[in-house]
Amino acid sequence: MAYKKLKMGMIGGGPGSFIGAIHRIAANMDGEIELVAGVFSSDPEKSRSAGESLFLDPNRVYGSYDEMFEKENQLSEEERMDFVSIVTPNHVHFDPSMKALEHGYHLVLDKPMTLTLEEARILYDKIKSSGKHFCLTHTYTGYPMIKQARQMVADGILGNIRKVYVEYPQGWLTEMLESEDNKQASWRTDPKKSGKSGCMGDIGTHAFNLAEYITGLKLSKLCADINTKVEGRLLDDDGNVLLKFDNGASGTLIATQIATGAENNLNIRIYGDKAGLEWKQEDNNTLIIRHHNQPDQIYRAGSPYLSHNAQANTRTPAGHPEGYLEAFANLYRNFARTIQAQRQGKQPDEAWLDIPGATDGLRGMAFVHHVIESGKSDQKWTEFTV
Amino acid sequence: MAYKKLKMGMIGGGPGSFIGAIHRIAANMDGEIELVAGVFSSDPEKSRSAGESLFLDPNRVYGSYDEMFEKENQLSEEERMDFVSIVTPNHVHFDPSMKALEHGYHLVLDKPMTLTLEEARILYDKIKSSGKHFCLTHTYTGYPMIKQARQMVADGILGNIRKVYVEYPQGWLTEMLESEDNKQASWRTDPKKSGKSGCMGDIGTHAFNLAEYITGLKLSKLCADINTKVEGRLLDDDGNVLLKFDNGASGTLIATQIATGAENNLNIRIYGDKAGLEWKQEDNNTLIIRHHNQPDQIYRAGSPYLSHNAQANTRTPAGHPEGYLEAFANLYRNFARTIQAQRQGKQPDEAWLDIPGATDGLRGMAFVHHVIESGKSDQKWTEFTV
Amino acid sequence: MAYKKLKMGMIGGGPGSFIGAIHRIAANMDGEIELVAGVFSSDPEKSRSAGESLFLDPNRVYGSYDEMFEKENQLSEEERMDFVSIVTPNHVHFDPSMKALEHGYHLVLDKPMTLTLEEARILYDKIKSSGKHFCLTHTYTGYPMIKQARQMVADGILGNIRKVYVEYPQGWLTEMLESEDNKQASWRTDPKKSGKSGCMGDIGTHAFNLAEYITGLKLSKLCADINTKVEGRLLDDDGNVLLKFDNGASGTLIATQIATGAENNLNIRIYGDKAGLEWKQEDNNTLIIRHHNQPDQIYRAGSPYLSHNAQANTRTPAGHPEGYLEAFANLYRNFARTIQAQRQGKQPDEAWLDIPGATDGLRGMAFVHHVIESGKSDQKWTEFTV
Amino acid sequence: MAYKKLKMGMIGGGPGSFIGAIHRIAANMDGEIELVAGVFSSDPEKSRSAGESLFLDPNRVYGSYDEMFEKENQLSEEERMDFVSIVTPNHVHFDPSMKALEHGYHLVLDKPMTLTLEEARILYDKIKSSGKHFCLTHTYTGYPMIKQARQMVADGILGNIRKVYVEYPQGWLTEMLESEDNKQASWRTDPKKSGKSGCMGDIGTHAFNLAEYITGLKLSKLCADINTKVEGRLLDDDGNVLLKFDNGASGTLIATQIATGAENNLNIRIYGDKAGLEWKQEDNNTLIIRHHNQPDQIYRAGSPYLSHNAQANTRTPAGHPEGYLEAFANLYRNFARTIQAQRQGKQPDEAWLDIPGATDGLRGMAFVHHVIESGKSDQKWTEFTV
Repeated sequence: MAYKKLKMGMIGGGPGSFIGAIHRIAANMDGEIELVAGVFSSDPEKSRSAGESLFLDPNRVYGSYDEMFEKENQLSEEERMDFVSIVTPNHVHFDPSMKALEHGYHLVLDKPMTLTLEEARILYDKIKSSGKHFCLTHTYTGYPMIKQARQMVADGILGNIRKVYVEYPQGWLTEMLESEDNKQASWRTDPKKSGKSGCMGDIGTHAFNLAEYITGLKLSKLCADINTKVEGRLLDDDGNVLLKFDNGASGTLIATQIATGAENNLNIRIYGDKAGLEWKQEDNNTLIIRHHNQPDQIYRAGSPYLSHNAQANTRTPAGHPEGYLEAFANLYRNFARTIQAQRQGKQPDEAWLDIPGATDGLRGMAFVHHVIESGKSDQKWTEFTV
Repeated sequence: MAYKKLKMGMIGGGPGSFIGAIHRIAANMDGEIELVAGVFSSDPEKSRSAGESLFLDPNRVYGSYDEMFEKENQLSEEERMDFVSIVTPNHVHFDPSMKALEHGYHLVLDKPMTLTLEEARILYDKIKSSGKHFCLTHTYTGYPMIKQARQMVADGILGNIRKVYVEYPQGWLTEMLESEDNKQASWRTDPKKSGKSGCMGDIGTHAFNLAEYITGLKLSKLCADINTKVEGRLLDDDGNVLLKFDNGASGTLIATQIATGAENNLNIRIYGDKAGLEWKQEDNNTLIIRHHNQPDQIYRAGSPYLSHNAQANTRTPAGHPEGYLEAFANLYRNFARTIQAQRQGKQPDEAWLDIPGATDGLRGMAFVHHVIESGKSDQKWTEFTV
Repeated sequence: MAYKKLKMGMIGGGPGSFIGAIHRIAANMDGEIELVAGVFSSDPEKSRSAGESLFLDPNRVYGSYDEMFEKENQLSEEERMDFVSIVTPNHVHFDPSMKALEHGYHLVLDKPMTLTLEEARILYDKIKSSGKHFCLTHTYTGYPMIKQARQMVADGILGNIRKVYVEYPQGWLTEMLESEDNKQASWRTDPKKSGKSGCMGDIGTHAFNLAEYITGLKLSKLCADINTKVEGRLLDDDGNVLLKFDNGASGTLIATQIATGAENNLNIRIYGDKAGLEWKQEDNNTLIIRHHNQPDQIYRAGSPYLSHNAQANTRTPAGHPEGYLEAFANLYRNFARTIQAQRQGKQPDEAWLDIPGATDGLRGMAFVHHVIESGKSDQKWTEFTV
Repeated sequence: MAYKKLKMGMIGGGPGSFIGAIHRIAANMDGEIELVAGVFSSDPEKSRSAGESLFLDPNRVYGSYDEMFEKENQLSEEERMDFVSIVTPNHVHFDPSMKALEHGYHLVLDKPMTLTLEEARILYDKIKSSGKHFCLTHTYTGYPMIKQARQMVADGILGNIRKVYVEYPQGWLTEMLESEDNKQASWRTDPKKSGKSGCMGDIGTHAFNLAEYITGLKLSKLCADINTKVEGRLLDDDGNVLLKFDNGASGTLIATQIATGAENNLNIRIYGDKAGLEWKQEDNNTLIIRHHNQPDQIYRAGSPYLSHNAQANTRTPAGHPEGYLEAFANLYRNFARTIQAQRQGKQPDEAWLDIPGATDGLRGMAFVHHVIESGKSDQKWTEFTV
């Protein structure tokens, strides 16, 4: 019997959305997932029009996610969607996620997990009890050289980790963009839609997640300087954080959206007592390994000497640059292949299982909580708990 | 009435193929094209198995392209494929291309156009007389910063073009890979499958096409040093070429597959009497503009200051790297949108019309012919004619 | 009447010294300074031997600086040294500096100024009251692109400064080098010779000085995480510091000597509300200016469009790399030319006057003091006072 | 008995000279050479004034080199100059060089060796028969990473050399600068002063010399396209050359002075059957070694893992950039140390003996001759003979 593509329903991602289109490209790229249903806007007319432009069956373009869950559940198992992808602003993460799981769907959810830490705890438990597959789209862990970096740390190439410097500078909010009818800027700087943090929730969480992912360490305490640099803005747009990890490593986390002229310059440097590594998202196919008194090495995506996990997350040989969309697609492909393998009674490749999940989501919300609290505190160190 | 995705049939791209999988990703990425049929191998069983892994309807996975054309033409216009994509080695370009056009299909064809210049002339005429849309996948002209470069030259930012340096160094054939059962190496170094040139046909044509595309100039004469550096190899794996363009500009074209350690380092530098530009495929999102006695400038893909054509060929904001697969997808998307616009009676965006076509294909084959002839000649300059 | 080269006497810089040889090259390079006397080691025989290898008159190679001051002062004004350069470890900065000034010599002193903040205050007053010229060799402010950066900030190109990220990662102390008879490592990690800080005094002060120099801002408070990562080491070898400047700008300062594989990667990034700038010491001839929604610019040393101060601190046209030694030589040349101008009754060029001096030295020692105190404190912010 | 600094007399390098000042810095830097005499201009008053600004004894600033040789030879051996440095335009190379040797002086001569190939042959013989030390200042072979590159090729790390790409693009002559009273442009574009070539003599010779130096190969034939791109210019300002070496390696040499916006971008890439190497003068402290299916390596100047010859030509540890002036100074220092060693009856270090000499000079002039002749020829290949 022939297997079918995995069927996806989408919540959010209509006109003006940035991340919705990204999710669709990521899902489409490898030809293993098919978008079959969706509610793309809280405005039914906009949702319908978006669905048409996506070549969807009009009967499966819905006016609300409640309607979507109800109608899709009436379809045959063969026909109805296999999983749901939620790409709405943060305040519309919790409710549809809970309902998707309750209706029996696997779930892909954009980060951060929820609006509040409390919601995250509830959703975490729900995911764990549901038995459904869950992916939180911390895109950057989908890059092959990040897989390679994590493997090299795990293999002890760097020795005992002493220092972690992670940065996420952007410049797009250097002006008061939210007063100019910019949809992306508006919700991200609105506490009702974004939560208790702007910059730290939007991009700081990516940096935090990346640092823990590569090193395998857990943050144990932090000391934050949180700022709103653009006058009139309602949430933080900048922050510097001192970090301490559970093995004693120290570091810094920088996230800012007012570094004028910066694009999307997530980068990380990790130093152990044997070697160091450096990676920049804007040059994502390169991983530099630094050695003491020996020539540094340039590891390149698509090369035959990379780890299985790194190779499993590339599509092209070295020198054919893959990028952000492919990293994103890796999350979708790994998620889909795991479900397909399960369907077929096969063991999924371990590379497919390596996607960000509920724990990442919960820790990310704890990071948002603590970093903002630390920013308000006169005390140097704040314990990181979940 | 809702419009449908454009339906694609594929010839080639089965097990061991590199470029077939690339074409499929490129076609899938934007969700505007659907693979509905194909003949993936000259071995019917391999073809069937490939089709299954691609989630295709087994009835539309064929054993030969003759069968595919015959059977698809029996389907309703609504159901049958809209265009054919040919991703086979060079010796299987001409015949299926002619037949695709004869059966009324638009055509996407991997480069170089054909096995011989004679075939190219015939196919060129066929394309012109067929009225069908045709795309020759010179991938690298699909990069947004190449669109930007071309626009800046056309706008006179560089002034009168004096120098063109284009290079395409690879290192993967530095060893006698064709003796090791490597499918990619085998056909590319086999005159029966690849034609009269190895390296110059495989990658030299890309470099040649890129130079003419950006500058808008036409090559008028050349002087080539063509080499086979790996003993026992049947075709050239290396060459250096002096160039003269129709405006008097001079330059060099380097293509090699034995530059040990080089990946896929296509790059171009163009200097006019007002400014210069530099672009490297491995850092494709950056275009450097050099000025006389003024600071150089870094143009970046995804930026709001770019030309319409550059912006129309990106999906993400600056700092979210797009790469080779997106450049390839641009060709497919532009091709598909033009056909969709035509169906809908709309004027296609001029950015969609800017894809490599029959003239590029014919000139590319003329380049292969002349560069190999010049390599054998004691005379310095060989006229470039088509 | 012909003018003579400026005559220099040196204290320190004998066998095993790193910085002494650097100072001599810096002084020699432009042919305007002549080494005429010195005490190169506390061991008279080593001093004599060093002097011989430097082609010095044996009569002017001394066994102690007290002897040097006494004997040189007995020479005619025409003959005796014009200024003293002190290149000893930190614990031998204060006493010879005081004496040099007392004996009427202009003074070049390696950083940090002294062993303790208290000494620095006394020396500061002495310099001010002596009327002698003084240069503290914060080398990195001698780079032409740092001059350019400072000018562009002063000219308002960056707008109001919001963020300052300054880093100084090295890796050479990643192992317990001081237990291996390494003279450089030994004194730098010895509190008696280095003072209350290792890393922060050795390189953190450079980073601090650079940030204040370029921005023209003053640090107002800081929050430090100070670490000794190599077991058994007596002083800090690593630290992360949160910064607040007097205009409200925030930032981070990183200095570490255990970033395995890092060389001497001092770098700074400054973002204002109009533009940003980035500079790396290891690529010192390049200054990147980042713009919001406009192409970034690459400013290059030796270019005709640079500020007077930048041009006055280069010797070669763009593309002929100058580096660390030239930056160091700029301090010496500017120092020497100012003194020569004074002799000749001329007004020195304003570029020559721009060298680090007593205030830089005092603030640097205050930085060392506060950063170490903050490192011990549970309170988040420590006021920066002098 | 104490040894003295080596005493230098200079011919040329007065007001408006570029390279004279460079030579003096190079000679001064290490404190082992002293400028004691000179004739800095054919105008005695300009010569005198230049000498004064260089703090020279007015009695040893001469009005002509004939006078200099005569007067200096009247001084005691202890007092008179030890060697002569000639930094005049090409047409004033031959005569003073011959006379310097005849008067018994060692000789440093700026490149290219002479105005014509005939002169070069005579001077070559003179040098050989004189027994004097001779250095032709092909600066770029003075870089430590070039020493490292040469060593790695000699050690077989790259295997059999197959390809050599050497480039020297500049942009400073992109406009008709010689009509604007620019001294540097004027003589370099004047056949009477520069010889039969402009660009190829000025910078092409550097590229040629570098390629032969690193590879240890000898050019056996070439095919040149030589251009004058700026209307009205009297000599070539641009050229592209195909190369064949004596081991069968092929390559290209590009030299141009009209690459708008280019600075001084000499660079070389060499590929053998085992590995490749890449070096750029503008990033001179880095040497990239490329491997087949293994991570590339970054070799850095000042590192302890470098060859003896590379280490002997640096002054600072890794991360403290040295540059053009230090490379130039290496030639002077090695030249001077060899002479000092000889005086002291010691064996010079083999690193000091590795400076460009008479053979480099003669081959360089042969290159100029053949490349210009080939440019005029309709025949593809021109044999390279000396």
